[in-house]
Amino acid sequence: MQLLERARQLEAGGQRIVHMEIGEPDFPTPAPVLEAARRRLDLGQNFYTPSTGAPELQQALSQWYAEQFDLDIAPQRILITPGTSGAFSLIYAVLLEAGESVLLSDPGYPCQRNFIRLAGGEPINIPVGPETRYHLSADLIAANWQEETRAAVVINPSNPTGTLIDESELSAIAGACAKKDGWLISDEIYHGLTYGVSPPCALQCGHPENTIVVNGFSKRWAMTGWRIGWVVVPEDLIDPARRVMQNIFISAPTLSQFAGIAALDAEREVEAMRQAYNERRRFLLEALPKLGFDIVVEPQGAFYIYANVRSLTDDSREFCWDILEKAGVAITPGEDFGTYQSAQHVRFSYATSMDNLKEGMRRLSQHIKSG
Amino acid sequence: MQLLERARQLEAGGQRIVHMEIGEPDFPTPAPVLEAARRRLDLGQNFYTPSTGAPELQQALSQWYAEQFDLDIAPQRILITPGTSGAFSLIYAVLLEAGESVLLSDPGYPCQRNFIRLAGGEPINIPVGPETRYHLSADLIAANWQEETRAAVVINPSNPTGTLIDESELSAIAGACAKKDGWLISDEIYHGLTYGVSPPCALQCGHPENTIVVNGFSKRWAMTGWRIGWVVVPEDLIDPARRVMQNIFISAPTLSQFAGIAALDAEREVEAMRQAYNERRRFLLEALPKLGFDIVVEPQGAFYIYANVRSLTDDSREFCWDILEKAGVAITPGEDFGTYQSAQHVRFSYATSMDNLKEGMRRLSQHIKSG
Repeated sequence: MQLLERARQLEAGGQRIVHMEIGEPDFPTPAPVLEAARRRLDLGQNFYTPSTGAPELQQALSQWYAEQFDLDIAPQRILITPGTSGAFSLIYAVLLEAGESVLLSDPGYPCQRNFIRLAGGEPINIPVGPETRYHLSADLIAANWQEETRAAVVINPSNPTGTLIDESELSAIAGACAKKDGWLISDEIYHGLTYGVSPPCALQCGHPENTIVVNGFSKRWAMTGWRIGWVVVPEDLIDPARRVMQNIFISAPTLSQFAGIAALDAEREVEAMRQAYNERRRFLLEALPKLGFDIVVEPQGAFYIYANVRSLTDDSREFCWDILEKAGVAITPGEDFGTYQSAQHVRFSYATSMDNLKEGMRRLSQHIKSG
Repeated sequence: MQLLERARQLEAGGQRIVHMEIGEPDFPTPAPVLEAARRRLDLGQNFYTPSTGAPELQQALSQWYAEQFDLDIAPQRILITPGTSGAFSLIYAVLLEAGESVLLSDPGYPCQRNFIRLAGGEPINIPVGPETRYHLSADLIAANWQEETRAAVVINPSNPTGTLIDESELSAIAGACAKKDGWLISDEIYHGLTYGVSPPCALQCGHPENTIVVNGFSKRWAMTGWRIGWVVVPEDLIDPARRVMQNIFISAPTLSQFAGIAALDAEREVEAMRQAYNERRRFLLEALPKLGFDIVVEPQGAFYIYANVRSLTDDSREFCWDILEKAGVAITPGEDFGTYQSAQHVRFSYATSMDNLKEGMRRLSQHIKSG
């Protein structure tokens, strides 16, 4: 965050910065979504929807789950939230009492810890490495579960590592949570942005009564500013969730909800973005190792590459700041995602054009060779 | 809430219900706002804004405060939130440690208590009546402030009572909070919907360094489904607030933020709605007393009338359910707003057409006479 601020400062001073630190699609929202928003504006209906979401969107998502995953999910189990941020605020408000804990991977998505703390809970950060593709595993969950633990969170594909959990491991993870009578929370926001393999939906992994799935329109559909996500809960969490939603959100943005329905049909536009991301990914997978960035597990999803920089530095934070100041390239130091081996890692985001990536590699190459 | 659900059930069964329980403008969003949203869609720019809001909207609101209240507020002190719900989640996350308390009026806006509890705080409900126009007063604040109290909340005009706090009393209230080195939180969401008198902005009342103002576009500008509000904080709360906002919202809906800028110029449309509300208000102020509803303090703002029903019932809850089932009129029992004398009060909302209000009065008259 401070690094991004400094990058903006340098830009304000006239310097050109290559941004490879930003976790937001660089593509505009697909045209059919904009068109649906225009039609909705013409209707002049922008009142509150029910707290749990516009029934039309719940219905469309239920059908989407049937088509994508062959899952039969009742529409009312799909709760519409203001982004996945809203989904996590909601989940922890519903699930946690003060002092209860949640298992997370380190490295992991940094806001998770804060959502949990804001609900009075305690995040337990579990070091993960290449041996589990930087994910929690069933064994890690079983070994780290405490008496006060209520849930484990996976993000699949992962931010910051772009790595996946396959169906057999995810089933084992769901089983490990169920065995503790706890929740598996599966963050599937990068679903659809995968290259060659597709991860399962956690609801396909054997313990739907103990599983909560979070997803949203921001990444796959390039709809960040629309602030619209969802969470799939078992039947008996609907009422407790509705009570929290009535209080903390009232409802998610109406126009965005109706635009979201159109997004679900924008397969062609999503596929074009996915192919562009994949091209960038392959470019970086080839370019980065030549510069000394070690990619231990090949990322197959999201738009991130998590690289080991041991051969380049013993302090990734200093390294990132140095690159920003001297080469005008912004990447994210490992410390933004946890503490475990964070000084040895950085994250590259390829949510930026191929031209920018090429310029970034040119600058990094020059910087590293001259250093 | 249960009553609204039952009303929907009855409607689904073919009955016509007159809704006087809903706290949402019945007007569509003003045309210039829709037009601004269309222009923004054409731009294709719907990325995240900075967490604290689009600088263009912060700037426009700063200018609006200068024009409306002659206040000089730096744009960066105006934080843009997903509705005022988001504003309250934010404020309490920033201000409260576990166990700290906040003073509220009873009756009052019911979600307040839940926002405070979700942040680990403790709401202290203070009974208020006609003698303070159903508001906290400086004396009540001084008398009820505990060692762990951090803030007092006023909502001006009030939900559920529609009554105002004038400048001298609000200044005294701000002084009482400042004297305790605590915060005055002033919810000004119904500002602009006032009839004959205008309440001050709390920032005009002498203790801006201890005052936090919450407002939004939902009510005055009929933009509920757009989910866009704001909070004005003193300079030294900006950084703590930004940290929470980055975590819990990322940012408010982008399209809505740019539409909001246009709303600030839609004076003519707002004035037309205000006049319609006032006409309805005057109709009810005349009709209700004839039916036995006692309006002890004339409401001069919002779109609510809080009536004493002692001469009609000793159980306002049962009374409201009876009216719904037998007369098809939905109004809100006092218990939805607190416990103090709640069995003796009901709330009427006039956010519905004059035709509906007339039909509602006809039905109530018949019901009460026949009872």
